[in-house]
Amino acid sequence: MTPAFPAHSSDLADFCWPLPARPGDPLDAVDTPALLLDLDAFDRNLARMQGAADAAGVALRPHAKAHKCPAIAQAQIARGARGICCQKTSEALPFLQAGITDIHISNEVVGPVKARRLASMARHGRFSVCVDDLSQVEILAHAAAEEGSRLGVFIEVNIGQDRCGVNDAAAALRLLEAISKHAQLAFAGLQAYHGGLQHLRSRSERRLAVARASVRTTAFVDALAGRGVPCPTVTGAGSGSVEFDLAEGVYTEVQPGSYVFMDGDYGRNEHGQLQFEHSLFVAAAVMSDRRDGQVVVDAGLKSLAVDSGLPSVWGEPSLRYAAANDEHGIVQRVEAGAPRPALGSLLRLVPGHCDPTLNLHDHLVGYRADRVECVWHVAARGMSR
Amino acid sequence: MTPAFPAHSSDLADFCWPLPARPGDPLDAVDTPALLLDLDAFDRNLARMQGAADAAGVALRPHAKAHKCPAIAQAQIARGARGICCQKTSEALPFLQAGITDIHISNEVVGPVKARRLASMARHGRFSVCVDDLSQVEILAHAAAEEGSRLGVFIEVNIGQDRCGVNDAAAALRLLEAISKHAQLAFAGLQAYHGGLQHLRSRSERRLAVARASVRTTAFVDALAGRGVPCPTVTGAGSGSVEFDLAEGVYTEVQPGSYVFMDGDYGRNEHGQLQFEHSLFVAAAVMSDRRDGQVVVDAGLKSLAVDSGLPSVWGEPSLRYAAANDEHGIVQRVEAGAPRPALGSLLRLVPGHCDPTLNLHDHLVGYRADRVECVWHVAARGMSR
Repeated sequence: MTPAFPAHSSDLADFCWPLPARPGDPLDAVDTPALLLDLDAFDRNLARMQGAADAAGVALRPHAKAHKCPAIAQAQIARGARGICCQKTSEALPFLQAGITDIHISNEVVGPVKARRLASMARHGRFSVCVDDLSQVEILAHAAAEEGSRLGVFIEVNIGQDRCGVNDAAAALRLLEAISKHAQLAFAGLQAYHGGLQHLRSRSERRLAVARASVRTTAFVDALAGRGVPCPTVTGAGSGSVEFDLAEGVYTEVQPGSYVFMDGDYGRNEHGQLQFEHSLFVAAAVMSDRRDGQVVVDAGLKSLAVDSGLPSVWGEPSLRYAAANDEHGIVQRVEAGAPRPALGSLLRLVPGHCDPTLNLHDHLVGYRADRVECVWHVAARGMSR
Repeated sequence: MTPAFPAHSSDLADFCWPLPARPGDPLDAVDTPALLLDLDAFDRNLARMQGAADAAGVALRPHAKAHKCPAIAQAQIARGARGICCQKTSEALPFLQAGITDIHISNEVVGPVKARRLASMARHGRFSVCVDDLSQVEILAHAAAEEGSRLGVFIEVNIGQDRCGVNDAAAALRLLEAISKHAQLAFAGLQAYHGGLQHLRSRSERRLAVARASVRTTAFVDALAGRGVPCPTVTGAGSGSVEFDLAEGVYTEVQPGSYVFMDGDYGRNEHGQLQFEHSLFVAAAVMSDRRDGQVVVDAGLKSLAVDSGLPSVWGEPSLRYAAANDEHGIVQRVEAGAPRPALGSLLRLVPGHCDPTLNLHDHLVGYRADRVECVWHVAARGMSR
């Protein structure tokens, strides 16, 4: 034991931020737990989504709240995406720093700190945000005036989720009037998003629910048109509903995010025509095997979001992830005779919910043919303000 | 809009890592969502736990997996804690860098990367770790030899949780024999932990369960003593069971972690004699109020762990946090006539489970009398390898 402790010495500094892998490593050498991305499936998912948006003549603005990773946003934009969505003002910072300059905050913003952060970023790019209350308009106008920047403003409309957004055209028109009083604000259009549609299990249910939501969106668009106000953009949709949203002809821009990865919850949806592949896994290692019929892996609640169910074990139908503790997972054999994974062996877990799982990790290990190709920084991880 | 984008310019660098608050700020100016720590309750919790351990003549080695915060570990050690526990090798890094040099990894370690990381840290402090398999002993011995360091080794014993740990004294003795063959390893004692006891709701159930677990722990200690091997340390216990663990006289060291904060799940336990206070909250702001009977707050799954239930709203019995989306929370009025919080107002949410909630945040805002006193870095957040 060393009595004199070399605090902050240079060799201790080397300990910082241990990476889970390096390009060229074999996949089974990844330090666990680690987020893995199957780059072949990822490439196909990006191409399919961009192809579907192009075929429909609708702009694609993928949601970065799913991946929080500038390298992925750059890949989406390189394939034709118009820009990205972020859900929080702080979430946009690492994307702006990575050179992504067209960012929509698909959410309301309250308080002067967030408005100022947004207006400050808008000095360096094209930024927009949602409102559903007159007070938000005034705070945004004040912040943009202080920063000398301009903000696009979307009016969020409630098309059935009953979360944020105005209920009726009269309220939308009042917001429109308030926005138009400020030279530093520009009315950008309507945001019409319904998160509840994304996980309706049957394809026909999703189709019907999208049709109903579209009727409500159209009513808002028509009410504004009746006052001589065109909507520059109608933005919304998610990975579960997007095939129908594209066909409805109401949206001019779609915001899917999860299509990049998919997850256990999306995997339980009946497939549509526009189908995406599981590309995201959490690599976990077997760390103890002292019990009959089960092993303990080193990935639990701090590496996997369980709000939409426990993970499944990819490619191992005889294994079931049965319980998540803070840092442990219990993996059981489904059949008594099935082989049990050896101590130290690596399992690929499919998370129940991709977005909050990404938010637990600082790095995403991209691989192809069982070899690590890249290690991307999940730079907006934790940026929830 | 600025067409020429100043990537990585100095003013963009200022955007990085926005802090939720600064010392001296009024509490209601905190940028949300943010983790809050009531420093008065925190101080009392630390004093109560240390006092109880001192009174029992048992060493306190608090678990840092709960707080992941070097400033808190330093406060615990300043009050008399012997050192800390970490659950993962990477989790120990920021604590070592902060000058904390007595760290027990209360978990098994598999694979050469983790063993090497641990052995490397052990060049700078007193480190120990658990084993329940012969192969782990060999990997640790090899890593310590490579690094020229020494490791304390605890044999983990199964006292009823049926997760990690050997089942019987014969297996423990085989591990002891293997450990004793390596000069760079030192047998440190037994780890006997039972996570399942912590949340038994009634006090009498917990007392009885601790008594049963103690019988099993004692049997292992006696079996080693029968071979002439004393246990330098018997370590274990958690915040729910610790008052009984201290009284049993089996443990020489206890590892509680959550007592620092408490949470919704612990709040549902029947109180014992040794009682801790809620000190941890997630500050959330009302960001939309367009629906009757409910508001939307800006803290959801990415700011609050929901594995042990949704949060409650502190000090507001007429409000119920009813649903967590990724970045939104739905807060409903329990009674139709109750007042509804205004747009922009701040609510304090009590997380269902403290450990994974800490793991979602980079900063912890300490306050006293509604004024921010400190902003601590949750430096081991995400360190799960």
